[in-house]
Amino acid sequence: MADNYKGLSTKHLLGIKDLNERDIQLIFETADTFKDVLNRPIKKVPSLRDVTIANVFFENSTRTRLSFELAQKRLSADTINFAASSSSVSKGETLIDTVNNILAMKVDMIVMRHPYPGAGIFLSKKVNAQIVNAGDGAHEHPTQALLDAFSIREKFGDVAGKKVAIIGDILHSRVALSNILCLQMLGAEVMVCGPTTLIPKYIKSLGVKVEFDLMKALNWCDVANMLRIQMERQDIKYFPSLREYSMMYGVNKQILDSLDKEIVIMHPGPINRGVEITSDVADSKQSIILDQVENGVAIRMAVLYLLAGQKP
Amino acid sequence: MADNYKGLSTKHLLGIKDLNERDIQLIFETADTFKDVLNRPIKKVPSLRDVTIANVFFENSTRTRLSFELAQKRLSADTINFAASSSSVSKGETLIDTVNNILAMKVDMIVMRHPYPGAGIFLSKKVNAQIVNAGDGAHEHPTQALLDAFSIREKFGDVAGKKVAIIGDILHSRVALSNILCLQMLGAEVMVCGPTTLIPKYIKSLGVKVEFDLMKALNWCDVANMLRIQMERQDIKYFPSLREYSMMYGVNKQILDSLDKEIVIMHPGPINRGVEITSDVADSKQSIILDQVENGVAIRMAVLYLLAGQKP
Amino acid sequence: MADNYKGLSTKHLLGIKDLNERDIQLIFETADTFKDVLNRPIKKVPSLRDVTIANVFFENSTRTRLSFELAQKRLSADTINFAASSSSVSKGETLIDTVNNILAMKVDMIVMRHPYPGAGIFLSKKVNAQIVNAGDGAHEHPTQALLDAFSIREKFGDVAGKKVAIIGDILHSRVALSNILCLQMLGAEVMVCGPTTLIPKYIKSLGVKVEFDLMKALNWCDVANMLRIQMERQDIKYFPSLREYSMMYGVNKQILDSLDKEIVIMHPGPINRGVEITSDVADSKQSIILDQVENGVAIRMAVLYLLAGQKP
Repeated sequence: MADNYKGLSTKHLLGIKDLNERDIQLIFETADTFKDVLNRPIKKVPSLRDVTIANVFFENSTRTRLSFELAQKRLSADTINFAASSSSVSKGETLIDTVNNILAMKVDMIVMRHPYPGAGIFLSKKVNAQIVNAGDGAHEHPTQALLDAFSIREKFGDVAGKKVAIIGDILHSRVALSNILCLQMLGAEVMVCGPTTLIPKYIKSLGVKVEFDLMKALNWCDVANMLRIQMERQDIKYFPSLREYSMMYGVNKQILDSLDKEIVIMHPGPINRGVEITSDVADSKQSIILDQVENGVAIRMAVLYLLAGQKP
Repeated sequence: MADNYKGLSTKHLLGIKDLNERDIQLIFETADTFKDVLNRPIKKVPSLRDVTIANVFFENSTRTRLSFELAQKRLSADTINFAASSSSVSKGETLIDTVNNILAMKVDMIVMRHPYPGAGIFLSKKVNAQIVNAGDGAHEHPTQALLDAFSIREKFGDVAGKKVAIIGDILHSRVALSNILCLQMLGAEVMVCGPTTLIPKYIKSLGVKVEFDLMKALNWCDVANMLRIQMERQDIKYFPSLREYSMMYGVNKQILDSLDKEIVIMHPGPINRGVEITSDVADSKQSIILDQVENGVAIRMAVLYLLAGQKP
Repeated sequence: MADNYKGLSTKHLLGIKDLNERDIQLIFETADTFKDVLNRPIKKVPSLRDVTIANVFFENSTRTRLSFELAQKRLSADTINFAASSSSVSKGETLIDTVNNILAMKVDMIVMRHPYPGAGIFLSKKVNAQIVNAGDGAHEHPTQALLDAFSIREKFGDVAGKKVAIIGDILHSRVALSNILCLQMLGAEVMVCGPTTLIPKYIKSLGVKVEFDLMKALNWCDVANMLRIQMERQDIKYFPSLREYSMMYGVNKQILDSLDKEIVIMHPGPINRGVEITSDVADSKQSIILDQVENGVAIRMAVLYLLAGQKP
């Protein structure tokens, strides 16, 4: 392999753990190109014209599924959608059988969301297909981390040296771990901040700062990534309560204006307005939340495009 | 703007209220062309090849969604479907955030059905996208009114001077208001007919005739548009009961044959056979119900095509 | 019609009953070609570029719907999906009205799954469209039978003279009847085997052998088609119980290895691993279960392609 070979070091994207820094830079450079495409009148490229991709979602997800689906359409791939709720999964079929069946229909790539951590890793060892992890429980969500880092790079020119505070429910988030790994690999400093009950003990072993005081975190950081409180998940018993959480960790415009510098506000969405951040923060000039969404399509195009080139 | 400029006077289609008569005539002429296309072996035109349209349905709707989706496919647009039930809406996201997220993914147009009257109007002021109202509560359903008027024009050559009776549950219908506005603008005379409990008081202010006696309405009109009783909506307490309704306002073949002239029967569907109309009426030569469905695709193609040309 | 005319003798595919042997051979030869296409890098052919197909599913089905949808995409057809649960069917519309509405939108072909036996036959007499039965209750599932026979032909070179045992819940299966008719027409010998409670009395009139002893059936056959126990159907009261069933009719590797010859194992999926067959059987070299899935797409391409050529 020549030194100028442009290829990922992995044939799956199961987690940021699979990538090295050069992979991430390659994804970013490819996403730059696709972002240009998305701003042209003709937003489609024929790159994956003969590739069939199945979006296999064992958990509901509108925003991530739409983003992947649009990325696939912009690349001219054929796509099929498989939602577990209305599927043979409810008839007692195993994950491996479900996916092997889809693959037997000559599908090239699987984009999968699954409620169990490690589902993608498990599957990648059992079936002969390329797998893109679109979120596995509270484990990893690599394309989200890539689009977050890409948005920081877009805003600041570079990720290296930036101070990023990830604020909120670190414990139940699939965004936190992927973000930490990705940002650190790119040379950023990472802090997590939230109530003690929502910060897992192992997090310190990842080399991140831990802060329980919101104001200290905000005063430290260049970027605050405000994670969402998953109000729809009945199995999470929040302590503190939502009301207390929002009083202690919610960010409003007054707080933002009281800081010494203009920090950037990110949020993976969907926002609970008035809980993690107030509307005037979400819609302020310091917020790059909609840029994140826009960049998501470009990043996913880049990931799918590069993985298709790795096909064994 | 030159006099021969062919463009709509609006960049959204939120209601018939947004249109003037010239707009409607332009939509009809464009739909004539597309109806020809739909009767060719090759039913597709490349007109919207680089336009992405999201169908955002906060309420179930098969017939309207399929009709819009087919219109989009015939125009070669890229489409994505977003059903609210399996979406981030159930995670507490606001309407504006949901739509802004979809737009950030470089979607050009939003076709939206929403249970609340005015949802499209509200949204059009808050987000930077073209919006087509596919039904907002009991308020407007403009493409239905356009396809109804188009079907009358097709049958009679012209809408002006025709007498149209809208019969049934006017109160809970999103079809009634749009129809009244559209038909009046085109010069038709409109009457509403139904039980007192299902006719709203404000309706007289629209300049329509009100009639509680079915036979009088049928003897007056050229066209009877039979609205459906929404049996699936548990929140509507029907008085009279279905059985009474059907006895007092249902139309059967015997009634139809007893009239002095051959009136035209329309129905927006889905039909409750034996309630609003009997099967021999629905399937009679006087019924243009399936023509309405066919014209729906052509009208929606025309609306999407013309709006795409208005893109700011 | 010249003797070398290559066309099906039917314009619908409602059941194997509609086909003669020559039809089946034509479907197989066409599927051979499409299977070659599916193994090329470019898996798409433009054959049905101007054909619109609606997949109308009144019952959930992932595997069959995906297989049809992929077949349609490989043929470049336009497809729309209609799931009854979120549809106007729940608003009280009749089957005929639902389908006539879809057809009025200029749809060429209907692929339909329906819980009631004979739904497709009924419909074919009432509406003016080509209908492909994708399963009607416990009646027929013709494309499954075709892909099963095609897979046997692929494995052995020919179906004629082969001994096929269909094992399990014959009573509630839509696969059994279609398989029996198809295999017999192609000259195979067919046996059904299962507990007395799951074998309908009329089955003998079809000219099949009936066997209650699993070992005798396995020792007799060349191919064992293991039907699935429909654990998700609450309305089926299984006697014997699942545990008893699996002990008496489940096939494990030990049983397979104890036979005098290497029989072929088939299963229409989804598999209940450990019930009908154990994992070491499902994943053994004797199993052609994933070949069945792969062949399903080719067979469905052939059926849709040939029917489109029959358009009245």
